[in-house]
Amino acid sequence: MSETAGPGHPLVVDPRSSLFLSLPAKVTEVHEAEEVGVTFPRGFVAAGVAAGIKESGRPDVGVVAVEHQYRTASVGAAVFTRNSFAAAPVVVSRKETALPRLAAVAMNSGNANACTGAEGLAVARAMQSACATGLELPVERVGVASTGIIGVPLDQERLTAGVRGAVAELSRTGGARFAAAIMTTDRFDKAVALEFDTPNGAVRVGACAKGAGMIAPGMATMLCVVTTDALVPPTVASSLLSREVGHTFNRVTVDGEMSTNDSVFFLASGASGVELVAEGVGRLGSALRYALLRLALMMVADGEGATKVMRLRVDGAPDDEDANLAARAVANSTLVKTAMYGCDPNWGRILSAAGAALPARSFPSVTLRIGGVTLVERATAVSLEPEEAARLREVMHGSEVDVVLDFKSGVGTAEVYFADLGHEYVTINAEYHT
Amino acid sequence: MSETAGPGHPLVVDPRSSLFLSLPAKVTEVHEAEEVGVTFPRGFVAAGVAAGIKESGRPDVGVVAVEHQYRTASVGAAVFTRNSFAAAPVVVSRKETALPRLAAVAMNSGNANACTGAEGLAVARAMQSACATGLELPVERVGVASTGIIGVPLDQERLTAGVRGAVAELSRTGGARFAAAIMTTDRFDKAVALEFDTPNGAVRVGACAKGAGMIAPGMATMLCVVTTDALVPPTVASSLLSREVGHTFNRVTVDGEMSTNDSVFFLASGASGVELVAEGVGRLGSALRYALLRLALMMVADGEGATKVMRLRVDGAPDDEDANLAARAVANSTLVKTAMYGCDPNWGRILSAAGAALPARSFPSVTLRIGGVTLVERATAVSLEPEEAARLREVMHGSEVDVVLDFKSGVGTAEVYFADLGHEYVTINAEYHT
Repeated sequence: MSETAGPGHPLVVDPRSSLFLSLPAKVTEVHEAEEVGVTFPRGFVAAGVAAGIKESGRPDVGVVAVEHQYRTASVGAAVFTRNSFAAAPVVVSRKETALPRLAAVAMNSGNANACTGAEGLAVARAMQSACATGLELPVERVGVASTGIIGVPLDQERLTAGVRGAVAELSRTGGARFAAAIMTTDRFDKAVALEFDTPNGAVRVGACAKGAGMIAPGMATMLCVVTTDALVPPTVASSLLSREVGHTFNRVTVDGEMSTNDSVFFLASGASGVELVAEGVGRLGSALRYALLRLALMMVADGEGATKVMRLRVDGAPDDEDANLAARAVANSTLVKTAMYGCDPNWGRILSAAGAALPARSFPSVTLRIGGVTLVERATAVSLEPEEAARLREVMHGSEVDVVLDFKSGVGTAEVYFADLGHEYVTINAEYHT
Repeated sequence: MSETAGPGHPLVVDPRSSLFLSLPAKVTEVHEAEEVGVTFPRGFVAAGVAAGIKESGRPDVGVVAVEHQYRTASVGAAVFTRNSFAAAPVVVSRKETALPRLAAVAMNSGNANACTGAEGLAVARAMQSACATGLELPVERVGVASTGIIGVPLDQERLTAGVRGAVAELSRTGGARFAAAIMTTDRFDKAVALEFDTPNGAVRVGACAKGAGMIAPGMATMLCVVTTDALVPPTVASSLLSREVGHTFNRVTVDGEMSTNDSVFFLASGASGVELVAEGVGRLGSALRYALLRLALMMVADGEGATKVMRLRVDGAPDDEDANLAARAVANSTLVKTAMYGCDPNWGRILSAAGAALPARSFPSVTLRIGGVTLVERATAVSLEPEEAARLREVMHGSEVDVVLDFKSGVGTAEVYFADLGHEYVTINAEYHT
């Protein structure tokens, strides 16, 4: 990341200079804007249309599908929000699909179809059915997802007309239009394209996502579609997706705060003809991790009013669960987030949030480092040499801040990414009325 | 509460009009400013002096003590932060006192003596010792507490000189000066005075506290001293205090976020000569609950930039722990808090935060009411009649908002108080540099 954020000038994650991203060995990233996204791998078509669900008249319905000739061997997988008030499309996608056989996904923005009762479920089924009919697929091979305002009935006529319109416009270059159709408050579109070689040939991975302000996503739904042209066994697809979502999106979102609509779909067309052997599976996993972390960091950077992104690593906790509790408590602390916004290396707030999350213990050897500068050692504040203070000041004014908290009490570790909290966050979230 | 908050114009809790406070039967509240606080009950002396710990030169060291002639029968109790990075004075008060025999407390503001290592412990012991010597008490009968900046050595000379100075100035009317000496970012002082009759005679309860922005206290330490002139058995004192802190301060602070220094002390002088029988104990409990809730609400109202206070009651959760998890998730959600600041009855954010806190369940009958207006029924948004919408608008523009979330899935309940989050919060917390 190099640019500084400000109103109308979002924080930009530059993968070539980010502290937090490193391209896996033998994987290349394609940066040409027209190629990135879900249609970068072979065997996919996509489209996005304006169906009148968004008042602005912008694109709001998108479809991505495996091309007809690859449907026999294609494979799907998905991960959904665990929120107990999951929206209608999540219920339908989770319970009324054959996920390993998924061959298409229909999505809309502008209305989340959440808290809409039995009627909402009927609308989600009609959306699925319209897409399946248009594609000549069984309904259980079509996933659906929605994002936008909640608690307002979603107009079934407009939605299904939009789905039919998108199906009619499906093309091998439709990835960018699909990505545009799922955006809501996003200030920039989020897509990625990767390529890697295997002993059996080259494989492509593409992905796009929508979402911003992921730290406390609440209503800030995250939707993502990942595609590949590798031949992937169904169990590999679902286990890779779950694992890599756990290492990426679940590190920037807070588990306990998934929105009602969060959904991640994975489609493998097999169009490359490349069967993944052990080594290839590993490489696909690395590529997925990079792609999803890249998208996740774009979401953090697109957070309302974000001016910097922090990575917090917790080491030496009694166990991983404790490490996770402490990391998330710090990442969620409004006192920590506002201090970061003020470029203040407020180690006291970090320590206090962590110590409250793991109460009634003793960590006499705890250390805390920010940007490589040690601020706390043996639970005691360190007085900095002038050159260290200067280095810390520079780090705090950058757009990426690396924080390491080591309890020195065990082998538990966790890592979490979070944005700062500034005035623009308050403005946007106080003024966005239901 | 009647006034509206704004910069330099804090939200005021008026106990006579607050929705959330009701004086227990037979208990009267004294409102005369000069009488309220820790010296309102008989048998106490207090003082506050400026010892030069605060750069501003304002009062920063205070002592409150049981008068000499009541020390044989007097009783103490205390509740401390569970933060694993507890400050030196907390360690000393918790481990190096005989709490049931506590007869005095010394406190300072301006420096929290936290994360100060072995030297900090020595300073806290010197503080305790200076107070004990001045009062001719054994050290284990003196509690200590500190609040202010953390990680900076606390000047032992100034501190002990201040303690000696305060001891020299102790008087029966020193409660207000004591209260002033423990303030930090507080915009107003917080004290209360209650009186109630028992079959054996009249009993007084006084209390003062410091603290603001209690919702995510982090470094916003809460200190409180409660006094009474009843004769209270030691086990009754400690069990009443624990219970009532649980019903009050722990409902506005978030358990998981207690600061490094939070401490509540309770001293009973016995100077009224009134032995509490069963009924009297109940009345003392009610009075304590009212006094502590009153102080807790003052702290919420004094939260940085707070413009309104919300009470969230969760009903019908599977059990109390689930109810508590859901209530605290909502109260801590920055999306909910900013919506409240914008006077937006954003039920979707409330539901989403609660549904994420109790993941992977089903609550098809959930209802949500704000200010008595039903917004969600059977997990589905309700469309409001115009008069209900008008009523809701009025509620949202008031300074107290009552929210009831009923999962309709069990008997678990919880209640929590929280403030909204506005621009001033960001300004204060981003600009308050370590």
